[in-house]
Amino acid sequence: MSNTPPALEEIESRLRAHSAGNGFNAWLKVDLIRVARGEIDIAIGLRPELLQHHGFAHGGVVGALGDTACSWATATIARDVVTATYTIQFLAPAIGTGLLAKAVVIKSGKRQSSVEAKIYATSDDAPDRLAAVMLASIAHVG
Amino acid sequence: MSNTPPALEEIESRLRAHSAGNGFNAWLKVDLIRVARGEIDIAIGLRPELLQHHGFAHGGVVGALGDTACSWATATIARDVVTATYTIQFLAPAIGTGLLAKAVVIKSGKRQSSVEAKIYATSDDAPDRLAAVMLASIAHVG
Amino acid sequence: MSNTPPALEEIESRLRAHSAGNGFNAWLKVDLIRVARGEIDIAIGLRPELLQHHGFAHGGVVGALGDTACSWATATIARDVVTATYTIQFLAPAIGTGLLAKAVVIKSGKRQSSVEAKIYATSDDAPDRLAAVMLASIAHVG
Amino acid sequence: MSNTPPALEEIESRLRAHSAGNGFNAWLKVDLIRVARGEIDIAIGLRPELLQHHGFAHGGVVGALGDTACSWATATIARDVVTATYTIQFLAPAIGTGLLAKAVVIKSGKRQSSVEAKIYATSDDAPDRLAAVMLASIAHVG
Repeated sequence: MSNTPPALEEIESRLRAHSAGNGFNAWLKVDLIRVARGEIDIAIGLRPELLQHHGFAHGGVVGALGDTACSWATATIARDVVTATYTIQFLAPAIGTGLLAKAVVIKSGKRQSSVEAKIYATSDDAPDRLAAVMLASIAHVG
Repeated sequence: MSNTPPALEEIESRLRAHSAGNGFNAWLKVDLIRVARGEIDIAIGLRPELLQHHGFAHGGVVGALGDTACSWATATIARDVVTATYTIQFLAPAIGTGLLAKAVVIKSGKRQSSVEAKIYATSDDAPDRLAAVMLASIAHVG
Repeated sequence: MSNTPPALEEIESRLRAHSAGNGFNAWLKVDLIRVARGEIDIAIGLRPELLQHHGFAHGGVVGALGDTACSWATATIARDVVTATYTIQFLAPAIGTGLLAKAVVIKSGKRQSSVEAKIYATSDDAPDRLAAVMLASIAHVG
Repeated sequence: MSNTPPALEEIESRLRAHSAGNGFNAWLKVDLIRVARGEIDIAIGLRPELLQHHGFAHGGVVGALGDTACSWATATIARDVVTATYTIQFLAPAIGTGLLAKAVVIKSGKRQSSVEAKIYATSDDAPDRLAAVMLASIAHVG
């Protein structure tokens, strides 16, 4: 099996199937907003099970969404991927009605990609607010 | 209000209340295994909503549990805490029936603690397997 | 003493004094290429003491230059600074006659700034090559 | 060429040759204190060119020593190595007459090792003081 990435339409279908299927991403209800080669925007709505004791999005949820965004951005370039490592900095409480993660592949090698993501807290009546920034290394497999 | 940490019994009650209450940690069903000054062991059972498309624990779940462990270990030393940053390395697929996270405060300053955690995949019929390692910086607030 | 950042001209003079003075940055012969509010470009020439056993720039040198760039970018915003933490990913061997580091403050809070840097290997007869990427958190002091 | 690690004596000779040869490690005057399979202790004396403007060891020097320790610890397990990524947290000013870095491989896979290091400031008349902690991923090459 070649490691050539498929067409963007095929990737988009595959990622939508992920979010509609079972598992953690489906439970998070990850919404695919935009997909381009090496770039992805995804979003979730915030509901009580996603919050922590101060009432804003749990850091684990912010991290999980960022990790998913970095993986999916790499999945537009490599066939199958798995996260090797990431660093996340929390910059502001993620207060709002949703989260938006925007990931961009910085550089892609044969075996892994370096990816950065910004995660924003969103709401209807206020501008998006940068809540966290992530730098990830995503391994290409299969 | 002083920033002196309360007695371990009070901390343990507070953390158990967290996991029994609402929000993401309650949904994860975080189980408090062991608490000591600057150290914590927590665990979760793995159910379908916590997995990814290869059938093992989603990296976001592994990260969230590690983040919670680092925060709770720091909560035994400082009154209220919030994660500033963490780095996680994924070392092996988290295949099993549960996850166990063990966090230890390396050094505690006035305003933040440096904490490391190891996250293991657990199962009834196999030894624990190191799935990820985390290095976090947890800010002391309030 | 206020923590208001001084004028850019004063900052530039102070940073040039650093690189002309004693200590590690002077030994590295850090060259200030460009300074703007929250942004900095610095460069060094590569000489034998800066290389490792494969003949390209030592990772410690690449990291040190990135760390310096992140600190100096923050020094255009806060009076005095100290690095709290950084993560660096090495993307390609730093082969060339020099290194160029470009740092940009992503977000600045009261007590610290989040900064990212890209470090390029440079040479006279080839385009700049991205050798490493860094995400740092720089504390504001004094 | 096999990737089987050589005997510890051969590794020790090779690392001593590094520190006695040319390049950045030789300039740092890295002293090999202890070598075991998957573990290394190295030290340097602090001289003016290694300091920053507050008079303690430059973060770049602390990072470079930690990076070298993580690489050398992995070199006791894999034939040739190169740093893929590391995260460093600075915990206290590195004030003293020297630095001591102790690195331990946490887990070694086929293609890379996860390594942690602690870097201490040392002096004749005071106990060692933990100045920084590092978590690295070191790739196995050749």
